[in-house]
Amino acid sequence: MLFASDNWAGAHPKIAENLTRHAGGFAAAYGTGDLDHAVQQTFSTIFERDVAVFFVGTGTAANSLAQASIVRPGGITFAHREAHMIADEAGAPGFFAHGARVQAIDGPTGRIAIDNLKAALNGFPEGHVHAGQPMSVSITQSTESGTLYELAEIAAISALCRENGLPLHMDGARFANALVALGCSPAEMTWKQGVDILSFGGTKNGCWCAEALVFMNPDQARQMPYIRMRSAQNFSKSRFIAAQFEAYFAGGLWLETAAHANAMAAELAGRISASKELRLAWQPRANEVFAIMTKQTSAKLQAAGAVFYDWHTPHAEKGLVAEDETITRFVTSFATTPEDIRRFGALIA
Amino acid sequence: MLFASDNWAGAHPKIAENLTRHAGGFAAAYGTGDLDHAVQQTFSTIFERDVAVFFVGTGTAANSLAQASIVRPGGITFAHREAHMIADEAGAPGFFAHGARVQAIDGPTGRIAIDNLKAALNGFPEGHVHAGQPMSVSITQSTESGTLYELAEIAAISALCRENGLPLHMDGARFANALVALGCSPAEMTWKQGVDILSFGGTKNGCWCAEALVFMNPDQARQMPYIRMRSAQNFSKSRFIAAQFEAYFAGGLWLETAAHANAMAAELAGRISASKELRLAWQPRANEVFAIMTKQTSAKLQAAGAVFYDWHTPHAEKGLVAEDETITRFVTSFATTPEDIRRFGALIA
Amino acid sequence: MLFASDNWAGAHPKIAENLTRHAGGFAAAYGTGDLDHAVQQTFSTIFERDVAVFFVGTGTAANSLAQASIVRPGGITFAHREAHMIADEAGAPGFFAHGARVQAIDGPTGRIAIDNLKAALNGFPEGHVHAGQPMSVSITQSTESGTLYELAEIAAISALCRENGLPLHMDGARFANALVALGCSPAEMTWKQGVDILSFGGTKNGCWCAEALVFMNPDQARQMPYIRMRSAQNFSKSRFIAAQFEAYFAGGLWLETAAHANAMAAELAGRISASKELRLAWQPRANEVFAIMTKQTSAKLQAAGAVFYDWHTPHAEKGLVAEDETITRFVTSFATTPEDIRRFGALIA
Amino acid sequence: MLFASDNWAGAHPKIAENLTRHAGGFAAAYGTGDLDHAVQQTFSTIFERDVAVFFVGTGTAANSLAQASIVRPGGITFAHREAHMIADEAGAPGFFAHGARVQAIDGPTGRIAIDNLKAALNGFPEGHVHAGQPMSVSITQSTESGTLYELAEIAAISALCRENGLPLHMDGARFANALVALGCSPAEMTWKQGVDILSFGGTKNGCWCAEALVFMNPDQARQMPYIRMRSAQNFSKSRFIAAQFEAYFAGGLWLETAAHANAMAAELAGRISASKELRLAWQPRANEVFAIMTKQTSAKLQAAGAVFYDWHTPHAEKGLVAEDETITRFVTSFATTPEDIRRFGALIA
Repeated sequence: MLFASDNWAGAHPKIAENLTRHAGGFAAAYGTGDLDHAVQQTFSTIFERDVAVFFVGTGTAANSLAQASIVRPGGITFAHREAHMIADEAGAPGFFAHGARVQAIDGPTGRIAIDNLKAALNGFPEGHVHAGQPMSVSITQSTESGTLYELAEIAAISALCRENGLPLHMDGARFANALVALGCSPAEMTWKQGVDILSFGGTKNGCWCAEALVFMNPDQARQMPYIRMRSAQNFSKSRFIAAQFEAYFAGGLWLETAAHANAMAAELAGRISASKELRLAWQPRANEVFAIMTKQTSAKLQAAGAVFYDWHTPHAEKGLVAEDETITRFVTSFATTPEDIRRFGALIA
Repeated sequence: MLFASDNWAGAHPKIAENLTRHAGGFAAAYGTGDLDHAVQQTFSTIFERDVAVFFVGTGTAANSLAQASIVRPGGITFAHREAHMIADEAGAPGFFAHGARVQAIDGPTGRIAIDNLKAALNGFPEGHVHAGQPMSVSITQSTESGTLYELAEIAAISALCRENGLPLHMDGARFANALVALGCSPAEMTWKQGVDILSFGGTKNGCWCAEALVFMNPDQARQMPYIRMRSAQNFSKSRFIAAQFEAYFAGGLWLETAAHANAMAAELAGRISASKELRLAWQPRANEVFAIMTKQTSAKLQAAGAVFYDWHTPHAEKGLVAEDETITRFVTSFATTPEDIRRFGALIA
Repeated sequence: MLFASDNWAGAHPKIAENLTRHAGGFAAAYGTGDLDHAVQQTFSTIFERDVAVFFVGTGTAANSLAQASIVRPGGITFAHREAHMIADEAGAPGFFAHGARVQAIDGPTGRIAIDNLKAALNGFPEGHVHAGQPMSVSITQSTESGTLYELAEIAAISALCRENGLPLHMDGARFANALVALGCSPAEMTWKQGVDILSFGGTKNGCWCAEALVFMNPDQARQMPYIRMRSAQNFSKSRFIAAQFEAYFAGGLWLETAAHANAMAAELAGRISASKELRLAWQPRANEVFAIMTKQTSAKLQAAGAVFYDWHTPHAEKGLVAEDETITRFVTSFATTPEDIRRFGALIA
Repeated sequence: MLFASDNWAGAHPKIAENLTRHAGGFAAAYGTGDLDHAVQQTFSTIFERDVAVFFVGTGTAANSLAQASIVRPGGITFAHREAHMIADEAGAPGFFAHGARVQAIDGPTGRIAIDNLKAALNGFPEGHVHAGQPMSVSITQSTESGTLYELAEIAAISALCRENGLPLHMDGARFANALVALGCSPAEMTWKQGVDILSFGGTKNGCWCAEALVFMNPDQARQMPYIRMRSAQNFSKSRFIAAQFEAYFAGGLWLETAAHANAMAAELAGRISASKELRLAWQPRANEVFAIMTKQTSAKLQAAGAVFYDWHTPHAEKGLVAEDETITRFVTSFATTPEDIRRFGALIA
């Protein structure tokens, strides 16, 4: 009953196995080996266009280097208040982007409300240097609240970006979970809706440590080799990332693991809905479930061996939670078993 | 005959195997799991004192975060002109240390000449703000030229550091190679000679991706958790680094792989010395061999399948090389075989 | 009727005159001349303790270098949402502090509400590295809304800072205006209430360009000479700043000019209160007056030659303003004349 | 006999007077006032093309913001080893350019030797990310050694820049001194030889504090308003800089003051040449004279009331100085009098 995070799981057996398979022999270092190139090519196949791919070590690195690649002096990126870039990266995006800022935009269940974004952009009239200047918009898919942007919503945000001359970044730490939930293609969820740069996460979905920064337009990535090197993210034996991704994509493993995690979340949500002591904070769409319960119940469940986090209540959802209650987060992964769900279901029935 | 770099090798089978062994099950993330703690404890055992250990992803990260931990405004770190921090990290140390600089100190065969260091320090009289201020000294062990600092030389540099109130950093990307060459203990090669902070490398010696920043005095590491997070080097499934180190240290594997690499280098050096066409640029002490040959010979050997780099001639050794000659670098690793050496030996005999 | 800003005025005649008086002759550069030292000593006299004083060129520099002097990796400074550091410096504080962030705290009329500050600090439990770490609190006196913190309010905030191990910074771009409004001494408004670092502004109150960073405890300023030099704020002919401050302090000129500006603001506020078309947004305490009027009235007054800004409505005061209305800002200075006020008063009567 | 630096002088009377003349009345802030615009226009007239001009407060700011405007990740600017940017700005250029580095190029008497520059550039083959990437070349005119680049030399360096896709920056802290020495026009000394960005100094030549960053191609300055604001160099009462420049340019005052300083230097050099105890280190071309004498003589002259600096011996001129000798620097300015020279001449006769 370990629902703390999808990064508490280890690596999928097929990924571990592929690492071992590639451990022998020699390969050119720093992303120039055959396997590196083959996997980069796979990304282009998956995204149905020539993309520029840069392996990095953490999701924070992917997000931060994306910022560095689009940095503007006095620049401001707009992201949802709950975004990882704002809440969970200790200021890394601003550090890598030379002091650029990430401004919080509100919206229900982890999604930027487009009217709030418009209003925020209006606060930066051309030439008013004191305020700084807009630099980009970043959306998280699936969101930190386990919800999704519909394709049309992404398109609407990207249209606003275009109007304002801003690139659109997607934090896809849980990209696969969103993809299988929406049932669309990677191209449809990204560049076909106007996404320019993608933080593509593998770690939370069964890899050890495999993240990639994907530029839909390789021309915009020209400085990235230097940014990555200067940012200490150029891995010498980079085939260890490539080998993970090779197995990740092979036979659609990544979609299977994501679908499994989502199914476990849906099953868990069903149990919570059926419980008298717990209720869903909102309907989950991917592999994160947020439940409201009394603090007493939370403590009781944790004492009974369930591991999950008492979450801070998102700004937009303050009204949902009574004073003696807490919002709690449950995350499922490729490694979550139906038995885990059953055991927890029994606890709350 | 792949002598391009020790990072062209993959992972040692025992390390690959241990990764697979730990792939299953759940563990707390971000360095807080049981295996993380156990491996951190192993470091303290190995160094014979309580050290603070921070896993990071690359040697550049270790060096750069060390700089960030000792940053001074207008600060200058002194390192050998050939140091990785100066020549091979695209300015990462300065980037992570907010624009601090690394000043090149000369000395033969990759080692800081202490008189040059003294002279450089004299260029920064107290209170002359225009010049900036000394911040630290960094030495590389084994050096980028495949040589070593003797223990007494480290002690002499650290004494100069103490006089000037400067911490001493050691770039130990090839720490194990130096250690077995000197036949001393990790404690003797570091804090017993006054080293304060160590970049401890595992990657070049048989790991996939396992580097650690080691603070001999944990009090000096208090800001490191935030520095590492802000620097995008806090790995969620950090047990993948811990598992590598666990196998690395188990039964002294790390010393075996380093000793093997060094032995292969010594064997290679012997063949080069015996060759009429090649000569050693200087005597190798660890796992890097530098040979001088004509450019024609270099091309011929490479055409015959030997992979090595035509190196830039180090500043201090300009006089060694005639105009039609080139200095070349050969690196051995845990994966280098006697057969590789024999084949190359035959080529140059 | 130029109420756009106190920085639209030039320099007070006595300050201009003193500059001319010091223009001849030679003096040691970079803050080491006799006049520099004398003025630094005057600061200590005025603050009734030995303070460390650093002249800088802009208020943004003072605020930003203060941040640089207390920087923590992943650090977060808390300031009111309307603070200059957040709204008007294009991210300079974060840039100079290596990507540190300034988090907005709400509160009515430009003042941090202490409960909001407490709540914000509670969001950073010890050791939760993902969130970053608190770094300092900054208050603006007088505030960007033309209001004041009472001495007891400053003391309460500094007590909270002490509990959390945080330095307290005061942005005193309009320090003198606050001082004469409260009728207390500089010591009482700063270190006696626990203020550690002060951005002391002279520019808005009659100087050309004279700002100083004042450390109440000189021990905390040890890195400042290097920070200032590295930040391009070490003026060679620094006596041009010293000479301004000399005249500024001589015979209490600074208190006179501030008292005059405040009196003009009070007079203006009286006219606005008496007007049927305008109303005060809130009671002014220093030299800034905020008035609410219809957009039509605003346009009419501007057409009639009054220069003032349609201000953005502060977050905490959204409820005050009807849809067809606007909040407007009027700033008075040493150069504002009773005749200006009379003319504007006649316009709105 | 104060020859310490040209920044020991105060302000020229005409500049002081003009400041007073503009002290009254109101003007729009932050560089948007009428006087600001008029002076910006004067720059375009002087440079015979539409240039973009940004006032800043220090020469270090001008140099550093120039770097910020052309920053490349992992970037390296090449400058002479004695350049202010390397030796005297405490690392500010690297700080403002996010950790970019300035690499020292050698050459006699303060001037980059073009062959050394070529060799340095060859160390950065396309795509070798570890080394970083060239970012710009910076030359100082007149140099820190009081010498000059001839126009053809500037053209040769700029041709090399073009070949390598690099902008050429000129540190013109003593621009006027060089200009009158060469007897050419500002256009001829800059863009007609391929200079892209100029740090235009007024402070050392009679202003209090007036520096400007001049972009020969305004298109390349588009981010500068934000860079300047973010760098705390956007002065509110910027007419105080504009007023200095207005007087500086009026009636060719700037050329007069520079010609005077140069003439004083030439006179001083003549005295030194004629002295038995002193000798010129090299022939001065502008307003700095370097003389070699015994340390004993240096001490004696200083005891007699002459103020000058024992300079560090430039790297390229080590051979000129015997062990008991010292290189000393004498700087003249608009305020140096023939009487100063006569008195010093008498001392050394």
